[in-house]
Amino acid sequence: MKCLIIAAGKGSRLQQRGESKPLIPILGIPLIERVIRSAMEAGADEFYAVIGYQGDTVRDFLERLAGRLAIRITPLVNDDWEKGNGLSVLKARKHLHGPFLLLMADHLFDPELVRALTAHSLPDGEVALVVDSDIHNPLIDMEDVTRVKAEDGKIRDIGKGLTDFNGFDTGMFLCTPAIFEALEQNREKDGDTTLSGAVRVLAEDGRAKAISSNGFWIDVDDPAAFHRAEQALLDRLRDKSNDGPVARYLNRPVSVLISRHLVKLDITPNQISLLSFLCSLLAAGLFALGGYFALLLGGVLAQFASIIDGCDGEVARLKYQSSDFGGWFDAVLDRYADAFLLFGLTWHLLAAEANNWVLFTGFMAIIGSFMLSYTADKYDSLMHERIKAGRAGLRMGRDVRVFLIFLGAATNMVLPVLVIIAVVMNVETIRRVIVSRDG
Amino acid sequence: MKCLIIAAGKGSRLQQRGESKPLIPILGIPLIERVIRSAMEAGADEFYAVIGYQGDTVRDFLERLAGRLAIRITPLVNDDWEKGNGLSVLKARKHLHGPFLLLMADHLFDPELVRALTAHSLPDGEVALVVDSDIHNPLIDMEDVTRVKAEDGKIRDIGKGLTDFNGFDTGMFLCTPAIFEALEQNREKDGDTTLSGAVRVLAEDGRAKAISSNGFWIDVDDPAAFHRAEQALLDRLRDKSNDGPVARYLNRPVSVLISRHLVKLDITPNQISLLSFLCSLLAAGLFALGGYFALLLGGVLAQFASIIDGCDGEVARLKYQSSDFGGWFDAVLDRYADAFLLFGLTWHLLAAEANNWVLFTGFMAIIGSFMLSYTADKYDSLMHERIKAGRAGLRMGRDVRVFLIFLGAATNMVLPVLVIIAVVMNVETIRRVIVSRDG
Repeated sequence: MKCLIIAAGKGSRLQQRGESKPLIPILGIPLIERVIRSAMEAGADEFYAVIGYQGDTVRDFLERLAGRLAIRITPLVNDDWEKGNGLSVLKARKHLHGPFLLLMADHLFDPELVRALTAHSLPDGEVALVVDSDIHNPLIDMEDVTRVKAEDGKIRDIGKGLTDFNGFDTGMFLCTPAIFEALEQNREKDGDTTLSGAVRVLAEDGRAKAISSNGFWIDVDDPAAFHRAEQALLDRLRDKSNDGPVARYLNRPVSVLISRHLVKLDITPNQISLLSFLCSLLAAGLFALGGYFALLLGGVLAQFASIIDGCDGEVARLKYQSSDFGGWFDAVLDRYADAFLLFGLTWHLLAAEANNWVLFTGFMAIIGSFMLSYTADKYDSLMHERIKAGRAGLRMGRDVRVFLIFLGAATNMVLPVLVIIAVVMNVETIRRVIVSRDG
Repeated sequence: MKCLIIAAGKGSRLQQRGESKPLIPILGIPLIERVIRSAMEAGADEFYAVIGYQGDTVRDFLERLAGRLAIRITPLVNDDWEKGNGLSVLKARKHLHGPFLLLMADHLFDPELVRALTAHSLPDGEVALVVDSDIHNPLIDMEDVTRVKAEDGKIRDIGKGLTDFNGFDTGMFLCTPAIFEALEQNREKDGDTTLSGAVRVLAEDGRAKAISSNGFWIDVDDPAAFHRAEQALLDRLRDKSNDGPVARYLNRPVSVLISRHLVKLDITPNQISLLSFLCSLLAAGLFALGGYFALLLGGVLAQFASIIDGCDGEVARLKYQSSDFGGWFDAVLDRYADAFLLFGLTWHLLAAEANNWVLFTGFMAIIGSFMLSYTADKYDSLMHERIKAGRAGLRMGRDVRVFLIFLGAATNMVLPVLVIIAVVMNVETIRRVIVSRDG
């Protein structure tokens, strides 16, 4: 699927963040790169970008991006970028002879919205627009947004000044070359060079479809919208379905705050994983050192490491750096970290008093933690099928484990915590085996 | 794919093993059940079995088998079972109007051979026979086998007395109803009621294809062949590609001997896994008990448990009881067993002298063993791709680990063994991570 991106405007209201609007980084990644990456996720594989204001800078960036992502991005120049945005669309007329996606360089969105477009089979001569049906969407600047009146899946009217409307123009289109004709016709008739104007012309003929949605999108147009966009991208990190309770309510809110700053540094997710691991190792060393102060410090450090452990995935998602290896590397380091923390606590107790039961409890806590992770994949995939059939399972993950370690260290109740971990982790492992067998 | 199985004959040369030949168990499973299971693996899903001698007993068994396997098996009675086997084939004439597999109840085979048949697209009016091209096949009774002369993928002649031949009749056919016509024609012409006779008629018209193969098959016709078949089934257990060196050269030969007897008992593979685990647990207890004698006994028991650990999979394969759960259950128990054995050794050393380095070494050995297993799946799947590209990886599995434990216990050199395990397992884990990263 070909994709046309309009990146010609000046974006004067965001000048404080960067001279060239499409290149303004939001959480470490330029706006236009986010648009292109999201479009790729939705199936676009060949890009045309209309550039205008600061065209050379944008062109240079796109050239490097095309190399990095191994895709084709053809720049098209619109020197009339100060006029209506329809003129930018018209610059692609010679290049696009079939259906194509039309996106704005400054509109961020959930790839699912574009997928709804690419999955749509559009008859010749028509266009389709994703229309946001959530008229109370807090991400929208009501002063500036283009309003849409849609009925029975068709756009009846479109424009900024509409008073009778039931949705908003998201700036995400699936077009046929009919859009070019409508733009020409409009320009010749009354000099209207806006895209909305052309859509209105098609709408009058019943040739403009409305694809209703209430998914995430935002027009990053001014500092307030920029801030809302940043916040929305960060908020989206927080609904990871497999987060445990400690991760969800304690670690994630903090790690997201940290990730917000980490994305601006030149640090990779794997380096963050390693950093978290080193913190755990240091915490284990502090446990083994003996004395309450070292124990407390170790506990805090362990919990801090657990929080940081969320940042690798967050940064990876924000910067499109997720990889199979990264996930696996993180999991391997987590297993080592868990074992070292529990071994540190065991050492702490043994240093005070050599006791076989303590030794055994420490061993069982280590083995239990391991087994819970070892059985997780198999069990999760099994439960995934069961949950559909109405049965859910307990999930007692690393977030809870490390939090217990922190609590034990902070309250100087190490042995009870080791006992709890030893019992709960092993019992849960055995339960998983029994449940899996019944399946 | 429909499948016709000839199970009418008396099999007088095997009467000492059982009154009804198709029901004679070989390594715990009746011959005809092995044939049906293998045919199912190759894609057959509806069965017709021609019964004759001891027909009621065979019919009862097939009825129960059909229930167990949730398939349809239609019994067809041939009271003339003492005459040529072609008459048994003719009993199915009313039931089979399209292509079908034709198998013998007393011929065991690798499902791959039948898959070669089902994958073959046979023109109307023809038959295809799997011809064993290995004329030195040691599993064949040269006195009794039907010989085949094939050229350019076609059977030129077939019969027991052929002197010019280049293969053997495996008794595995893909037929069209043309086989019925050829049988009738032959019977009317000169009273020949053998299947070979009918194939010869088709061969004369160039309508009998030969599908050449040198895979496993055996005609279980007399006590010597029965013994060869048993041995062949057991030998096939020994070429498991992911066996480590200790498993391959020490454990597997012994475990196969044990499995040969276990299949005759009413013990499930999972029960064998559990038995092996309990032996390991007992061995770990003996280690912790202290003293060289207990240590030695524990070492022997640990190695014995490692051998038994091969039997669960062997029995499962021999008795068609393999399951995803079984493999996973075995893996989970193995992880616990490994940890307990190493913990037992650590305890053994600590009981003699409380030493932090011993404690640390034991911990590192336990964590290293775990990590090696934890990283195995991911690494194996990665290496699977790499090996195609010419790069192989070291595989240091459980068989080697337990053997080292046995050696350490037997020679009373526990600490060196713990050090070796701790170093090798962790270094290998780190190597895997690095190798995976490069990929």
